Amino acid sequence: MPPSAEISNATYGAVSSLGEPQLLHINGKYQSGSRGETFPVKNPMTGRVIYHSASATVDDYSAAIETAHAAYESWSRVGPSKRRLIFLKAADIIETYLNGGAPEILSAEVSATNPWIKLNILATAGVFRESASLATHIKGEIVPADRPGTTILIERSAVGVVFAISPWNAPVNLTARAIATPLICGNTVVLKPSEFSPKSQHLVVEALTAAGLPSGCLNFLPTSREESPAVTEFAVKHPKVLRVNFTGSDRVGRIIAGWAATCLKQCVLELGGKAPVIVFEDANIQDAVEAVVYGALSNSGQVCMSTERVIVHKSISGPFKSALLERVRKLKHGDHTADAEVTISGLFSPESAARVRDLIKNAVDNGANLLAGDLKITGPNKTILAPHVLEGVRSNMDLYHKEVFGPVIMLSEFVTQDEAIKAANDSEFSLCASVFSQDIMRAMDVARQIRAGSCHINGPTVYVEATLPNGGTGGSSGYGRFGGIAGVEEFTERKIVTLARSGMKYSF
Amino acid sequence: MPPSAEISNATYGAVSSLGEPQLLHINGKYQSGSRGETFPVKNPMTGRVIYHSASATVDDYSAAIETAHAAYESWSRVGPSKRRLIFLKAADIIETYLNGGAPEILSAEVSATNPWIKLNILATAGVFRESASLATHIKGEIVPADRPGTTILIERSAVGVVFAISPWNAPVNLTARAIATPLICGNTVVLKPSEFSPKSQHLVVEALTAAGLPSGCLNFLPTSREESPAVTEFAVKHPKVLRVNFTGSDRVGRIIAGWAATCLKQCVLELGGKAPVIVFEDANIQDAVEAVVYGALSNSGQVCMSTERVIVHKSISGPFKSALLERVRKLKHGDHTADAEVTISGLFSPESAARVRDLIKNAVDNGANLLAGDLKITGPNKTILAPHVLEGVRSNMDLYHKEVFGPVIMLSEFVTQDEAIKAANDSEFSLCASVFSQDIMRAMDVARQIRAGSCHINGPTVYVEATLPNGGTGGSSGYGRFGGIAGVEEFTERKIVTLARSGMKYSF
Repeated sequence: MPPSAEISNATYGAVSSLGEPQLLHINGKYQSGSRGETFPVKNPMTGRVIYHSASATVDDYSAAIETAHAAYESWSRVGPSKRRLIFLKAADIIETYLNGGAPEILSAEVSATNPWIKLNILATAGVFRESASLATHIKGEIVPADRPGTTILIERSAVGVVFAISPWNAPVNLTARAIATPLICGNTVVLKPSEFSPKSQHLVVEALTAAGLPSGCLNFLPTSREESPAVTEFAVKHPKVLRVNFTGSDRVGRIIAGWAATCLKQCVLELGGKAPVIVFEDANIQDAVEAVVYGALSNSGQVCMSTERVIVHKSISGPFKSALLERVRKLKHGDHTADAEVTISGLFSPESAARVRDLIKNAVDNGANLLAGDLKITGPNKTILAPHVLEGVRSNMDLYHKEVFGPVIMLSEFVTQDEAIKAANDSEFSLCASVFSQDIMRAMDVARQIRAGSCHINGPTVYVEATLPNGGTGGSSGYGRFGGIAGVEEFTERKIVTLARSGMKYSF
Repeated sequence: MPPSAEISNATYGAVSSLGEPQLLHINGKYQSGSRGETFPVKNPMTGRVIYHSASATVDDYSAAIETAHAAYESWSRVGPSKRRLIFLKAADIIETYLNGGAPEILSAEVSATNPWIKLNILATAGVFRESASLATHIKGEIVPADRPGTTILIERSAVGVVFAISPWNAPVNLTARAIATPLICGNTVVLKPSEFSPKSQHLVVEALTAAGLPSGCLNFLPTSREESPAVTEFAVKHPKVLRVNFTGSDRVGRIIAGWAATCLKQCVLELGGKAPVIVFEDANIQDAVEAVVYGALSNSGQVCMSTERVIVHKSISGPFKSALLERVRKLKHGDHTADAEVTISGLFSPESAARVRDLIKNAVDNGANLLAGDLKITGPNKTILAPHVLEGVRSNMDLYHKEVFGPVIMLSEFVTQDEAIKAANDSEFSLCASVFSQDIMRAMDVARQIRAGSCHINGPTVYVEATLPNGGTGGSSGYGRFGGIAGVEEFTERKIVTLARSGMKYSF
């Protein structure tokens, strides 16, 4: 019997049932909020309340931060091999959740389709195993010293308590990413999940707890929408919280950065995107179409890396457009629970669907040309929107500037390479981009001129591997990187320790 | 004839004379401010105006940022060997300034004594040569990819325009540090020097210009005290400024961090310090005394790394105190221009001297015990203060909490190791610290428990080598690191470039 199967039997059923209330999880104990308040979590497809979640107060956050601070003393001294084993075990455990409750939870909370559920869970296992592999690579340096008889050590040390805020759209793997590198480096974490998906996000905590992560290292505190600003400000500014990470909107990111600045605290902020794809005249059109469809419509476009803008060379825009529209028309949208072949399911809330539809409608009313999509919102709770393809979206329209976070593709044309680069860079976002060309040297030259944390040549803008230091380069996409060694650099700090010999003389 | 001697002959006399007005230096041209305004720069020892400096306006900053942005296009593409040669040449050139005007300028602008002048110039040459050596070490990674047929490159690319603000206290080497790593990485710089020391700081620009740095790469814009907030806010928030660095007070650092947060821009902030030194019962007392005197009194204590707090084991506090007081009493304080043996010269302004004296007086009035120093301010411009040693400074006194930035040493006693660590960590600052003990394993254990960017075992808290990533760990000492490879990480960003093969299939 392989080890993972053994774990599977032992922990199957550990996933809390969708019907039960969700509690806070502080210092290894499940508990209600200090004021006993709860908030309803709704199924966006049906609009019905699935369960109630305890809502953490400032007092609960205060207790969790103290707990995490106390746990840090011991966790930061645990050897890397032991930390690694916990993460390897958690990876095996979370994979079993694919057959043990996770699909039901993700489907109900955020209308996740099967491919998206699978990506969430497998990417999380990947994040856990990659984090495990980093445990023995949190390395310092020995630097040669000019001062005679001196040894200079530059150690990488854990920081302390990290406050992590992770979103609903990829609720499992973005939560894993927010806490895994901090923990493997020896920090402890206070985690605030989205109010839309506490149970999906709690899967990460369940797996790590089942794998033996000591109590107090990872504390889970869902909070109602109403209470969120107060608890977030409290935690960001708390003197025992030494780092903050946030994955979410640029609007909230800016607020968090401002709070952190008042106490000179460092943040990792992965915020919005509005990824461009440049398709050159020598591109393989079918490759580009496949990548645009996948990049734009995964999880109905609710991905920060989503392709929103496709900038196509004029000489091939006709064939590209035809091939794209043909491919998009074949995709099924609708209620994924009613039809397993649906790839474009409903958005995470009726408000979001209305917002996306209004952005499109406003562009069309102002002269943009709708090539696919009908501007209709359907489904029992008005969350389903067909994929929409537009051309002629101009800078006087909100759609041109704002992150859409829905199933929308905007096409435009270019003639010169400089025009294409200028169009790609004409955005306050800087998360990721793609370039399609068979001339790899040209594509690399263009990739270097696009202001983005990642640029994919002949691949989609949505590309997830646990080693990748995804993130923005400032502005509305935020800054700081989560993946791989870059994440270790964010959640440790360099500590210079010098050793001097006796009898040193100074200049006076 | 060695190459440096050749350069010396060629550039000797390039240092602008102390009597001439200081101009702005934008795109290689010397010019007045756009409104023709100037401000006086005074000699703090005499109180007399030495010269007038042009005062840069928001319009001048706007022009400089555009210039730097344009220069970035070409400078970022210059090969590392050529960038390296410029920095190596600049190092040779700045060394010649020790015999060519620099001592006169530093002595007049900031009352720098000979050892401090020498440290400034030689450390600057070190920063230039260390930066030169980094040019070919701005390395990316190739990361193995799970996705078949994919190559993942993680490049380190320059960022763009960096806005650098450097202080008066170590006016040459802290300016060199603020601009050298940004430039060697391929960025361009807009530099705001302190209004107290434009000419000292301009030495850095002169050396790099003489060494062949292209016009527009490094722009120098002194501004009057009155105009500083407006131009600083303008430059921090300017969309073409992509990184900010600031070395200075925590008060101003907090303001800059707040402005940067509004536009989600990353900063490196090296702010205040209040360095503790722990002296254990087994320490070599003479070593500790020498290090405390050097660490606390270099540049009259006007160093962010200055030793302020000395925490001595009760069993040796008698002999330590006697040895320290004997050593301090032998030091000469006064006007360094009148007596070459003066090591404690006047502070950088009469206001600063009055502030330091008031901090001490307030502590004494509240029960602290003055062991050395007379609370008197002397000198023609009331800037000279004797070294002061106190004990019994308690947390109800401002002196306990605030950064002094003057010639002051506070002694306290401890019994247990935990007490000593607690006392060392009882500060909002986290820049550096020292531990004295002959038990190196214990000293390292303690060093790891002190919250500070650097901890020196058996050496002074003031320790400068160009390779050292000095900096704070958040809070009032700021965050981000300047030296060595850490500086490269701050002033470049990771850019993921992936290469995919044709014919990839996605999940839908």
